Amino acid sequence: MSDRWVLGVDIGGTNLVVAAVPYAGGEIGALRTQPTQPERGAEASVNDIESMAEEVIAEASPEGGLDDFVGVGIGCPGPLDLDQGIILSTPNLGWDGYPIRGRVGEAVGLPASLDNDANCATYGEWWQGAARGLTSVVGVTLGTGIGGGLITEGHLVRGASGSAGEIGHMTIQVDGRQCGCGNLGCLEAYASGPNIALRAREGLDAGAESILSELVAGDLDRITAATVHEALTRGDRYAGEVIRETARYLGVGIANLVNLFNPEMVVVVGGVTRADRHLFDPLRSEVRKRAFASAVNACEIVAGALPQTAGVIGAAGIFLADSSH
Amino acid sequence: MSDRWVLGVDIGGTNLVVAAVPYAGGEIGALRTQPTQPERGAEASVNDIESMAEEVIAEASPEGGLDDFVGVGIGCPGPLDLDQGIILSTPNLGWDGYPIRGRVGEAVGLPASLDNDANCATYGEWWQGAARGLTSVVGVTLGTGIGGGLITEGHLVRGASGSAGEIGHMTIQVDGRQCGCGNLGCLEAYASGPNIALRAREGLDAGAESILSELVAGDLDRITAATVHEALTRGDRYAGEVIRETARYLGVGIANLVNLFNPEMVVVVGGVTRADRHLFDPLRSEVRKRAFASAVNACEIVAGALPQTAGVIGAAGIFLADSSH
Repeated sequence: MSDRWVLGVDIGGTNLVVAAVPYAGGEIGALRTQPTQPERGAEASVNDIESMAEEVIAEASPEGGLDDFVGVGIGCPGPLDLDQGIILSTPNLGWDGYPIRGRVGEAVGLPASLDNDANCATYGEWWQGAARGLTSVVGVTLGTGIGGGLITEGHLVRGASGSAGEIGHMTIQVDGRQCGCGNLGCLEAYASGPNIALRAREGLDAGAESILSELVAGDLDRITAATVHEALTRGDRYAGEVIRETARYLGVGIANLVNLFNPEMVVVVGGVTRADRHLFDPLRSEVRKRAFASAVNACEIVAGALPQTAGVIGAAGIFLADSSH
Repeated sequence: MSDRWVLGVDIGGTNLVVAAVPYAGGEIGALRTQPTQPERGAEASVNDIESMAEEVIAEASPEGGLDDFVGVGIGCPGPLDLDQGIILSTPNLGWDGYPIRGRVGEAVGLPASLDNDANCATYGEWWQGAARGLTSVVGVTLGTGIGGGLITEGHLVRGASGSAGEIGHMTIQVDGRQCGCGNLGCLEAYASGPNIALRAREGLDAGAESILSELVAGDLDRITAATVHEALTRGDRYAGEVIRETARYLGVGIANLVNLFNPEMVVVVGGVTRADRHLFDPLRSEVRKRAFASAVNACEIVAGALPQTAGVIGAAGIFLADSSH
């Protein structure tokens, strides 16, 4: 039986993930993950992807091998040139101007597609995860940065130059916090992982009582969003406040998305969603306060259902969607 | 020759417009406009629309009459129930729960479609105006309120409950000015007509020097956005400041739209656009400051090309689009 699988490749700043994704949906056939170590350069990672792909292909399809794979879908942090298949500049990888689509396609010996990581995660949640079967979906990815993807009528909105969905750089405060992009008051400047940690540190500097300092043995620079989450699980009140404040900012951004797109679902993806109701209760309440009731009532706001695999599944799904028309 | 025309009906808080729009695009065949006077009730306006339609039909098609019209497209302030063809609640008209689509269709004797005024204006500019031939367009309507419409791949994005495009209620300042919708910091609370006037009055109260007070014979409550525009054309420095500030807020909102949708064009429609370069120069510069360069470079920001007729043409175009699939 040929054409059973699509190879998915998810290139993150932290991890590489390669998986055999069934053409028709369903369980992943095989998956490998390993640290990216992007500082070794793009070629080293392409070699890693090649080895991981060989293992994944052998495991998922011991008889047919590569013949059972129709192609490879690649997801990667942007900005990308989707037409040319090139990474334009990626602060998290440092591989500027690299022709990732062609190089990965050659290395694994399959036709290849490319899209940015946030589009892949959104598409994965829509194709196989929390937003399955819906026609109008917004994905919000929370990590080092804040990204997003928009699906209307079952298609990703890519925009005039392939950069639609830049949710993180929505201004929510005209003269607000400085963002890494140079702008003031972006959502990302309040609610990305590093900015959650930064706000937590600022509060401690201002005298807040918390076990956070203890968790990092007094070295406040070591506080990350994960440390804040750990403090929260230990019942730390101040960590709870930081998460509530994060939820409020995310709620403002998501209310804007609900008013603009009137989606059936907003799927929130990323480590911060582990805070669960500590995040989602105040977030939903902020959205309800700010967005139109009819749009709020039409929209579920949920955590992604594929925490480790949305990106790799979505990358594979986008290959199928792109090659079917 | 049958099926040559579509009737367009644009129901505004101020004016009713009825026009014969050619099926294949091109010059309007006949147009009537008159004050809405919505306080007389919806039935009185439907009677007016019926009389105006008779005149328009007779003028555009003296021989074929109604037989040369395929249908009537209606545009109306929302929120609307698009499935049922009902006005849910319209602060500007006061006709709550009124079955506008059925009543106008019956009155003129044609199959009818309904959409909100901002979608109609956006669609009109896309079908026949400034955004003709593009696939990815955002329309921004500036008036008593701020509305919007989104076109991707040549289709209006309507969303899960028909309310997509609520651009005016995007939060741009978390704890900002009180908006009529109950929320804080909406774009509309800064840049709608009444809020431009309000900001102008606040500045005068705080001692700003301007000919504005003269223009309203000292009665500051009579200042409207049109008064600010008149002062601007007379070279009033303070009016220039008010418009620049308006442009800056609109620039923040439009930068968010450029980052989210990456459109080929943002078309700005409404009276405020008469300020021309006084509005658009600082607006474009704010967008360039805040949005991603690749998205900014891919996007033109222009005033609408159909200042009086975008709504009525778009309403007719939406009838054709809705009835063709």
